[in-house]
Amino acid sequence: MLLDDINKTGDIKNIPQSKYPELAQEIRDFLIEKISVSGGHLASNLGTVELTMALHVALDLPKDKIIWDVGHQSYTHKILTGRKDKFDTLRQFGGMSGFPKRCESDTDCFDTGHSSTSISAGLGMVKARDLKKEDYTVVSVIGDGSLTGGLAYEALNNAAKLETNFIIILNDNEMSISESVGGMKKYLNSVRTAEGYLNLKEDVYAQLRTNTKVVDNIRRAKNSFKQLFVPGMVFENLGITYLGPVDGHNTAELVKVIKEAKKVKKAVMIHVMTKKGKGYEPAERHPARFHGTEPFIVENGLPRNPRTTSNYQDIFSTVMCKLGDRDEKVVAITAAMADGTGLKRFRNMYPDRFIDAGIAEEHAVTFAAGMAAGGYKPVFAVYSSFLQRAYDQILEDVCLQKLPVVFAIDRAGLVGSDGETHQGIFDLSYLSSMPNMTICAPKNKWELSDMLKFAVNYGAPIAIRYPRGNAYDGLKEFRAPVEAGKCEVIYEEKDICLFALGCMVKIGEEVRKILKDNGLKCTLVNARFAKPIDTDYIHVASSNHKLFVTMEENVASGGLGEKVRAYIDENRLDCNVLQIAIPDKFVTHGNVDKLRKELGIDAQSIADRIMKEIQR
Amino acid sequence: MLLDDINKTGDIKNIPQSKYPELAQEIRDFLIEKISVSGGHLASNLGTVELTMALHVALDLPKDKIIWDVGHQSYTHKILTGRKDKFDTLRQFGGMSGFPKRCESDTDCFDTGHSSTSISAGLGMVKARDLKKEDYTVVSVIGDGSLTGGLAYEALNNAAKLETNFIIILNDNEMSISESVGGMKKYLNSVRTAEGYLNLKEDVYAQLRTNTKVVDNIRRAKNSFKQLFVPGMVFENLGITYLGPVDGHNTAELVKVIKEAKKVKKAVMIHVMTKKGKGYEPAERHPARFHGTEPFIVENGLPRNPRTTSNYQDIFSTVMCKLGDRDEKVVAITAAMADGTGLKRFRNMYPDRFIDAGIAEEHAVTFAAGMAAGGYKPVFAVYSSFLQRAYDQILEDVCLQKLPVVFAIDRAGLVGSDGETHQGIFDLSYLSSMPNMTICAPKNKWELSDMLKFAVNYGAPIAIRYPRGNAYDGLKEFRAPVEAGKCEVIYEEKDICLFALGCMVKIGEEVRKILKDNGLKCTLVNARFAKPIDTDYIHVASSNHKLFVTMEENVASGGLGEKVRAYIDENRLDCNVLQIAIPDKFVTHGNVDKLRKELGIDAQSIADRIMKEIQR
Repeated sequence: MLLDDINKTGDIKNIPQSKYPELAQEIRDFLIEKISVSGGHLASNLGTVELTMALHVALDLPKDKIIWDVGHQSYTHKILTGRKDKFDTLRQFGGMSGFPKRCESDTDCFDTGHSSTSISAGLGMVKARDLKKEDYTVVSVIGDGSLTGGLAYEALNNAAKLETNFIIILNDNEMSISESVGGMKKYLNSVRTAEGYLNLKEDVYAQLRTNTKVVDNIRRAKNSFKQLFVPGMVFENLGITYLGPVDGHNTAELVKVIKEAKKVKKAVMIHVMTKKGKGYEPAERHPARFHGTEPFIVENGLPRNPRTTSNYQDIFSTVMCKLGDRDEKVVAITAAMADGTGLKRFRNMYPDRFIDAGIAEEHAVTFAAGMAAGGYKPVFAVYSSFLQRAYDQILEDVCLQKLPVVFAIDRAGLVGSDGETHQGIFDLSYLSSMPNMTICAPKNKWELSDMLKFAVNYGAPIAIRYPRGNAYDGLKEFRAPVEAGKCEVIYEEKDICLFALGCMVKIGEEVRKILKDNGLKCTLVNARFAKPIDTDYIHVASSNHKLFVTMEENVASGGLGEKVRAYIDENRLDCNVLQIAIPDKFVTHGNVDKLRKELGIDAQSIADRIMKEIQR
Repeated sequence: MLLDDINKTGDIKNIPQSKYPELAQEIRDFLIEKISVSGGHLASNLGTVELTMALHVALDLPKDKIIWDVGHQSYTHKILTGRKDKFDTLRQFGGMSGFPKRCESDTDCFDTGHSSTSISAGLGMVKARDLKKEDYTVVSVIGDGSLTGGLAYEALNNAAKLETNFIIILNDNEMSISESVGGMKKYLNSVRTAEGYLNLKEDVYAQLRTNTKVVDNIRRAKNSFKQLFVPGMVFENLGITYLGPVDGHNTAELVKVIKEAKKVKKAVMIHVMTKKGKGYEPAERHPARFHGTEPFIVENGLPRNPRTTSNYQDIFSTVMCKLGDRDEKVVAITAAMADGTGLKRFRNMYPDRFIDAGIAEEHAVTFAAGMAAGGYKPVFAVYSSFLQRAYDQILEDVCLQKLPVVFAIDRAGLVGSDGETHQGIFDLSYLSSMPNMTICAPKNKWELSDMLKFAVNYGAPIAIRYPRGNAYDGLKEFRAPVEAGKCEVIYEEKDICLFALGCMVKIGEEVRKILKDNGLKCTLVNARFAKPIDTDYIHVASSNHKLFVTMEENVASGGLGEKVRAYIDENRLDCNVLQIAIPDKFVTHGNVDKLRKELGIDAQSIADRIMKEIQR
């Protein structure tokens, strides 16, 4: 096995060029084997095996820097930098991250996780290098999907003025997670189908050489001569040298182009054509499904543990289709997450009323505001941690004008194995401080349905947050009509009031049981709304209970607990408050139950904290 | 006067074409006269007189929709839509806004204030129009400066697929507020210098017609024929029809082009060349100074009330230059606000260590993170309300990696006459919830200097927030060394503890005096840090005082007060808390003192609230 000789950074340089295809195959087999057991990002990693090999051959790490946009395609990089043996702990608590981490290796020079950041970060490093008069190569590897994000364009616009080397590798697989969208996609497509730069140039130059008069005329038309021959003219026009397109599965050719690119004293883009899922047939056929995958059976690509229960995304999918049927004003918007959020069925049923903005959350939000201003009821389905990217647009374009946009915030709370960058633990904080915003969260699957129906007719900005994964199907009998700012009392007792939001209601039930065994009686309340909070109920309950416990899967700062505490304290109500929330730190990757325990927000920890609190 | 006949929407249509230049002149005179008294945005409005006239001639408002990007160029639009007489109340409390407001006129179809949103909002309206099968024109007017913002690119990328009409007017004056930057600027420049589309086409076509063989060869090179002749090929490549460049000061010609553009069944961009400050010589020469101007003397453009005191921006400017001299690692970053933030001197002294990212806050932050990862000490100077645009990048690229980026947050708190979109009243909330972030605010000008020096050597993410305008020069004798998370006690008494952040310390002094006259003794504390809060001090002080009053110029939700209250309540310290902060609503335009009174955060209101509180 060639892979046996790859044990630390640089070992790949000892592999002869003739063996590259063999090594690539071994890496693919390794990735498929490991990810089939652990789950993780497969398709993107299979697509970038040769590209990563070429980078490690052509560059000297850690002196040279590679910034992986989003970072889920960094597995081969991890293999080639001495982390092969850690794949058994991939994405597990305490194990290796699925993303680049500076704390994990000095060859990971910048942490990523969210899209479109790599060119900006790379430019920053280039500037630092130049000021220090140091000499190393900086490479940003960005997918064509990430290129639909405005941040990438802002960076390209800034890269134009560079007079020193900076390499941007456009990893073009015609996909984000789903298929890429928009004008840039169309443009890249036209480039792909064009003949390669060098060939075309030779060919047409030769023929033109005999027609000097025409050549002169063409020369007179400023800026147009190059346009005739260079496929990547959009980039050239912005001031970026363009090389490509290049076959992304030919390591030797890639090494050659990267070495060429190192000589350019400007920002230079290498346009590399790759195939998502390359070399594993099920992933080639269903790259979206194998983007981030659960453990699967290698032989056929089917899940090892087929899902038997429905998750919140299924419910969302079904209800959206119903709403679409009932109300022509309902439109659905996604930022490249039609699959993940469950909007695929809506897209198929109401293609006119479905919009995929690409990886462009800011645009998605302001576009939704425009549609709302035009009399429609847009529902923007988005992961919590990605909605962060549109903070200003939510505030200025939606809330300020009080436009009726529904934010269906998926993956809210802990998401597990994707780790720090994907945990949805800030949305309650940043949305709560926005005037005119309403925020709610369902306790179970039926309530998601009820809240969604409520939200599309609410007539003002509203967010519904719900977690990743299995939809809770308990407490079915509790289905009081949703009313703005009103909570739902599940069990009424005395002693302690558990005031739980969303997924914490289920945990509240468990806490209640534990405490009952300890002789304590708990009221359990489904808070429903994080903004506005139900002050009427809180007012009454705080006089009936000794301890008011707020429970939320969000950081404490700016969340539900602080609001409830402020209300109780401000009104000098005689009731102690215990805030259960995520402490002020980033939350690593790992199993969600495990993480809850670590953070002290699992049922047992909460029960313990309550016991301690009432004994104070 | 022609202007006498312009009293409501559509009146301009009665003006004969031959009188357009005369009307334009009258509008310019009107704008100069009014703004010279009230202050406001001058240069951008002088630049768009003819363009706005042409839009109102070619379109039917309010049926047709115009979205003004940023919106500070909407004054002529306000004149032409029956709001001429309201200019005496411009930007004053209760008066006319300096930006488009849906609540002000049905011809203002979308509120703006922040950059680069207009194409997204316009696309949303187009989609709504098409779904409803209605027939009206939607026009987004966007400056070349706003085009450096990634959101605009995300929108262009989405506009590409349109199969119905949508007009984008690129108002190209080669400026944002300062000069535009980057590759797009360079590109637009090349387009400007190219001959117009039609002429060039005719000319070169004619000559090529005689050389069929070459034409065939060229045709074989896909995608390149059009590239040869169309100046706006970058846009054409993205799928946007390009018309231009057009003289932006010829109303009749503009009307013609807009009418042409209405026929295109696609997204169509009209590239209009305008001059900022057009027709008023001081503004033409100093467009940045006349972007947003104080009242001035028409004859010479000099300020009516020359500044006699220094403001925070002056202090920032001086200290940055000193730091730049002392420490080669200090670099300064702005997002198109070198003038406003006070970085101009630093730019002149250390051009290598100064970076203007353009209107691209997201890029600026991630770029800063890259520089910090490369060993530098970047200071990003930015207005509070614009930093909102980089929420995700602050969290994911700076805080997560604990990179030492300094955020110099200018215009924090109330900014006054720019209104809702410019008030910097959310930063404490959104930054407080970010792990690894430290936040401080100076009480006076010397403390800004001390904090800045402290911050560049802090070694972790840190934000300093300070207000617009005059720097407080009281309390000079209080200059205890800055220590992370430690407050500064100014006056120690009993009864009441005023725990004030930043500009509220000055107000705290006034509150103290008022209360003294009422027989109450107040401790006054300069909180200094909003995160982490000084729990040691709070612990002690809450046992010494009957009432703990937190004072901040930020919304209450997620701000300093909630943190302090939570600490006191959680630790069951025996002290009531009164939170002085901005209530949960957007704050309109108007004089800052007036606004404070309205919001109940001026000295008298605070004193009254304290009196009421202690009598409870």
